[in-house]
Formats: sequence, C-alpha cells, structure tokens
Amino acid sequence: MTPRESWIPGLPAGDLFGIHNLPYGLVSGPPLTRATLVVRIGDHVLDLAAAAVGSEHAPLLEASSLNPLLAAGRPVWRAARTAVVSWLSDETFRARIEPLLLPLAGLRCHLPFEVADYVDFYSSEHHATTVGRLFRPGSPALPVNWKHLPIGYHGRAGTVVVSGTPIARPSGQRLVDGAPAFGPSLRLDIEAEVGFVVGGPTALGEQVSLSQAAEHIFGVCLVNDWSARDIQAWEYVPLGPFLGKSFATSVSPWIVPLDALATARVAPPARDHPLLPYLDDTKHDGSAPDGGGLDIALTVSVNESVVSRPPFASMYWTPFQQLAHLTANGASLRAGDFFASGTVSGPKRGQEGSLLELTLNGAEPVELDDGSVRAFLEDGDEVVITGQVAAAPGRPALGLGEVRGRVVAGPA
Amino acid sequence: MTPRESWIPGLPAGDLFGIHNLPYGLVSGPPLTRATLVVRIGDHVLDLAAAAVGSEHAPLLEASSLNPLLAAGRPVWRAARTAVVSWLSDETFRARIEPLLLPLAGLRCHLPFEVADYVDFYSSEHHATTVGRLFRPGSPALPVNWKHLPIGYHGRAGTVVVSGTPIARPSGQRLVDGAPAFGPSLRLDIEAEVGFVVGGPTALGEQVSLSQAAEHIFGVCLVNDWSARDIQAWEYVPLGPFLGKSFATSVSPWIVPLDALATARVAPPARDHPLLPYLDDTKHDGSAPDGGGLDIALTVSVNESVVSRPPFASMYWTPFQQLAHLTANGASLRAGDFFASGTVSGPKRGQEGSLLELTLNGAEPVELDDGSVRAFLEDGDEVVITGQVAAAPGRPALGLGEVRGRVVAGPA
Repeated sequence: MTPRESWIPGLPAGDLFGIHNLPYGLVSGPPLTRATLVVRIGDHVLDLAAAAVGSEHAPLLEASSLNPLLAAGRPVWRAARTAVVSWLSDETFRARIEPLLLPLAGLRCHLPFEVADYVDFYSSEHHATTVGRLFRPGSPALPVNWKHLPIGYHGRAGTVVVSGTPIARPSGQRLVDGAPAFGPSLRLDIEAEVGFVVGGPTALGEQVSLSQAAEHIFGVCLVNDWSARDIQAWEYVPLGPFLGKSFATSVSPWIVPLDALATARVAPPARDHPLLPYLDDTKHDGSAPDGGGLDIALTVSVNESVVSRPPFASMYWTPFQQLAHLTANGASLRAGDFFASGTVSGPKRGQEGSLLELTLNGAEPVELDDGSVRAFLEDGDEVVITGQVAAAPGRPALGLGEVRGRVVAGPA
Repeated sequence: MTPRESWIPGLPAGDLFGIHNLPYGLVSGPPLTRATLVVRIGDHVLDLAAAAVGSEHAPLLEASSLNPLLAAGRPVWRAARTAVVSWLSDETFRARIEPLLLPLAGLRCHLPFEVADYVDFYSSEHHATTVGRLFRPGSPALPVNWKHLPIGYHGRAGTVVVSGTPIARPSGQRLVDGAPAFGPSLRLDIEAEVGFVVGGPTALGEQVSLSQAAEHIFGVCLVNDWSARDIQAWEYVPLGPFLGKSFATSVSPWIVPLDALATARVAPPARDHPLLPYLDDTKHDGSAPDGGGLDIALTVSVNESVVSRPPFASMYWTPFQQLAHLTANGASLRAGDFFASGTVSGPKRGQEGSLLELTLNGAEPVELDDGSVRAFLEDGDEVVITGQVAAAPGRPALGLGEVRGRVVAGPA
C-alpha cells in the first residue's frame, strides 16, 4: 500500500493513529443509534456502516462485530483496508466522508469481536525462566519442551472483556498456612501480553503452515491476562491454570490490522535449538530471517506510575509459529478465535510483564510514584498497559492504544 | 411431573426413549427443509418448530440451535418440557401432534447447541490415580489438591463435534527415542465422559452456589474426549493438555434434560477429606445425602467389542460441585457453556474409561472379539460409548443414546 496522507484537518504528521494505522473498533453513543464498527484516525473515528453504504463492503461493515469481516478472509481484509485508506486520503471522497467522522471523546468502546476460542501462550523465555524458578524450585527453570514448541493452553473466551471493565478481585481456594482456604485472592497480578485476532476459518483436519499463518491473522491488540497467583499455584498441577485466570482477561479496544504492522516486523531471537520443520523460521541459505517478530514497545503502569517497559521484540516464539502450532493437529479455526502471546518480559530488570517477576513473588515490592509499594495489586489500583511502534527510517510510528482496568473488591 | 404414558402407537412400556426421557436434538433431512429442533420419543422425533406454532414457546423452539432455550433459564425449560409431555401424552393434542412425528431413521443429527466455553474436569478418583501412576512415576499418584477441588481446564469449543463425525488421526510433536519428532499420534485414545449443557447465563463476578448449580444445568449427554497420549505427555507440563486434546471432542446428539434424571440421582462416594463450604455436599445433620451423583451406566466398545463398563455413579466430584467450582472466582456463564465430567473409571478392572488405563499404557493390550488386540486405536477403528439409566423400583429406564466415531488416517 502506498503511504498517503489523510485530508483530515489538523491531524499531525506522525500521529500514532494516522493513515498508516487505522485500527478497527466498535463504539456506541450519540449520534450513533447502535454499536457501530469504526476505524480510528487521530482522535476521531469513521463510522464504517455509514461510509460503506453502497459499497461491496457494506454487508460486512454494517455488522455489530468484526466477525463477519473476520470470516471473509485476507483478500477481503486487504480490499476493505484499501477502501478505507482511499476514503480518508483521497480528496474526491472528502465531501461524503468528512460528515461521518465523530470525535472519539464521549463514545463508548466495546469488545469489537465475539471471541470464539481463546488460547494463551507462554512464549517469553525470560518470563518462563523466572516463573519456573519461582513456581518449581528444584526443577529446571525452563521446561524441557519449552524450546521445542510454543507452550499454550485454552483460556475462557466468555470472560474476555474490553478495556475499562472493572476487575472484581476473584475468590478461590489457595493455601493459607499450608491448608486450603477459600477467600479473595491475596496475590492478584497482571500479565502484559499482545493478542492476535484470527479469521479466515479452516476446516477440521486442516493444518495451517508457518508460511500461511499470516493469512489467518487479522489484527493485533493489547492484553492484560489478570492472574490470581495464589489460586493458580494451588490448582495448576497437573492440568494447568483454570480459575486463577478465568475470571477476566482485558483487551484493548483497537484491533490494529496486521497489514499496518508490516514495517514493524523484526527477526525473533536466535534459535539455539533446531526446530521441527513445521515451526522452523530460520533461513538455511544465509538470507535475511523471516522477521516473524514485531517491534512493539509496551509500558505497564500502576496508578500512573510506569513499573515496566516490556519489549515484544524479545519474544522467542512468534505469532506465526504459535498459529502453526495451534493447528498442527488439525484443530480448525473460526472467525473470532483469539490468541495471546503470553506474558511479555524482556531480559533486563524493569522489562518484566508481571508483578510476580517484577517483585520476585513479592520479595522485592515495587515503589510507585506516590511512595507506596506493591507486591501484588490492591483494591482500587488501576493498571494500564500501552503499546506502540516507534518511528524509524522507513517506518511510521503506530499506536496500539491501551488496555486499562481497575481492581475492585469482589462480592462479599 | 406426574408420570404419564404416551399415546404413541407401538411405543413399548419401558422404552429407553419413552415419555419420561424426551431428549432434545437437532436434525435435518426430508421432509424438513432446514435443521430443526426435535425431541426424541421411541424411534421417532417430534418437530418442535411445528408443534410449538402459536404457543408461548414458539420463538425458542423455532431456532436452529438450543441456545435461545438455554438462555431462557430453568423456569422456561420446565414449562417447555411440561408442554412437550402434554403434547405427547394427552389425547386431546393427538390429532394435531401425530402428523408432526417423523421416523428418526433417515434423518441426520447435528450438534444441537453452539458451544460457548468447554471445560473438561478430572473427577474420577480411579482415573486420576491410575493416570498419575503412569504419567508421574515417583510423585504421589493423586495430586495433593485433588480431594480439595475438582481439577479442570478449558478445552477447545470449536472442535466439539457431533457423534458420527470421522476423527482424523492428529499429528503433533511427541518423543521418539527421547527426541521430539513430528508425525501422526501413535497413542490415540478415548476418554468416556458425561457432559453437561449449561444455560441460564450469569453476570461477571456472580458465583453460583452448590444449591443453585442445578438451576444452570439444562441437560446431559455422552462425550468422547479423544486424546493423543504421546502428544499430551510431551506438551502438558506446565500448562496442561493442549494439542493432545484439541483436535476433536465428540458428543452424543441427544441432550437429556436434567429433570428427566431426577430419579437417577444417587449419593456420591463418601468424602474422606473435609470440603470447603462452597463445595461441601455432605449432610452434617445425619440426614440423607444430597444425591449429586447420577447412576448412569456407560459401555465402551471398539469395533463392536465391549471393552469397558464405566459406572458414572463412582465419580468423586458431582456436576453440581464442578459448576460451583467453575464459577467460584466470578467467571460468568453463557448459554451453550459445556463441561464434561472427566474420564469415567470405576474401581474395578473392566471399568476404565480409557485405553491408557485399560491397557496400562499399552503394556496389557485388550483383545477384541475378532481376536485382534489393541494397545491404542488403529485407523479404521470405530468407538461407541453408550449410556443408560437402568430401571429400578420408582425409576424408569432411560437412554442417553450413544456417541460414535471412527478413526481415519490424518492428512498426509
């Protein structure tokens, strides 16, 4: 796609939500009469249902979720994006389109897709190593399978919520003085992740190859996979996390098209174990690597104090490997399938994507700007995770926005 | 509900699908013009969309899945069932209803509900103990948390399929001579389970108490949770089963209303560990137990040879405890949520719900009636799991039907 500039008045060059980005969302509020699909540009949104009237894209963009568009597959995603770019950059459309722009302020954002299945991976080597040391002392920090496959598990699709939804502190079983007791989690944590929205359904039995995986990834968002560490630690052997995770997963409201992130692709970390062919993204002919990583810089803040800056480029397994693995057994994909990267933690202190790691399981609490300290989250704490692609030569700056959530006391 | 007899000609007294049962299904085929909700009676089905015309239940029963009915909640489920019983037992309805009965033979059964989230439990003490010995030699056979909570995990909702769907042998990573290799599973297995279809949605943050759990369980079916043991064994530490399970889960086409199973309720095994109050189903006043178990007799056959007779009454954790646990952290329920009991294995040899247990991980293959032996499943093998409630004083015999699936070679 040729970079263009938008005709939108007052849109600064280099705006994080400029013409190069155009993430999809679902909003409601006057003057809209129902939840409506939009793209964001600057601090405005374009009403896609209204803009698409009479176009070939109308049946998909009039919907009240992205799922019909997700089902249509990548050629349609590309065509729709090309149309939207034209509408917002070609002066010949301006008279028709400009009245369909609405200020974002005052509108309410909704989850823009219906989640089919939700899978959470575990693809940061630094996260997995630290968590292994904390949860499984005496065992190898990194599980023996970790460098051979992207470990993942299914989460609860029905409790994926949009940014801004209050997060009630979950109750559950956890050990108190060595005995199980029921009550509010005492170790409520965050996990800063990046999420991938899937479309282009496949049939049962069909494998999606590494080279085809991008055809099924519509877009990217931010994820906070809230985690009750005490509930998780007691329940997770042998079948994995369940109630320690299933109470809520928050996602940012803007789905950035994968096509918008083409210039943010980077090579993943060097592979120090040979990979089986279905996961092998190394080039064996000496040419440049595939660039399955994405150079997205995250920040994690608690009550407006930045506590961490996780670099997504440090992830060992890429989303393309994750999707190839997810379907290697013939599991089918549906429009609205969603998978998250796993906690993003870089190699350095201050790059950890969870309080568990930042505080070494509470041993070294973090200090906030107001002088208070946190081992884990307290009621009233507000967590915000942001993501952006920094501008660089040949690459525009892009925003992923934020995923926000405030912890509130659970039911008595 | 007063037991009645149906006016259906030729329906034998004691038929497994008599007036006491009336399971719901979704069928298509001439003379029907679309997939249509039905109840089964004997070897016929009643077209519910046609039968409900003009009644208060029409909007729910005209749907092409049970989900609208599931969303309506138990009072509506009871009223709809009462109406259906009347239509099929009261002579005054006969002239209108009899033409709406269709022979089941020749109709195609579909999955009668859209699966929202799928959770699989692990609630047979005998299964968990044997699997623990086989998978984790040197550790306690039963995990330390097992008697304190019903262990469970989320499975893949998108690959739940109806009985009769061919099951392609999955490929994946498994250890060969100690090194990971990719290829078709060499240890394809079954898990005979009972499944529970959920309705009566709840809000995020709401806990469903043990005493309220039955209000959210619409009905019961049979489940074969196909499992690739070699893929599972390599992948499952530390986050649980993933690709070893996610390729397919088969369910029987008939959803037997929980109300039809009232007389099949039995006390679960004695609890030898005290339970936290939210899971405690023991009576502390000496009165009769709650009877959260269900006396359903399963059979497992491979190529028409019965290899096992698992007794569901032996399950340690009941579906009511499972649902109370699933929501203890405030996780919301949606119409179409589905959970399975975990492999049903009784205390004796010949009552195991998986080949893993029956053959002690392949060490003692089972012999089929044709003289061939099986450690795990071969391509072409057909597995059928049946379930029924035996007649007893005060209790009619009831059928759950069967869940059937044939293994076919996976893609090359």
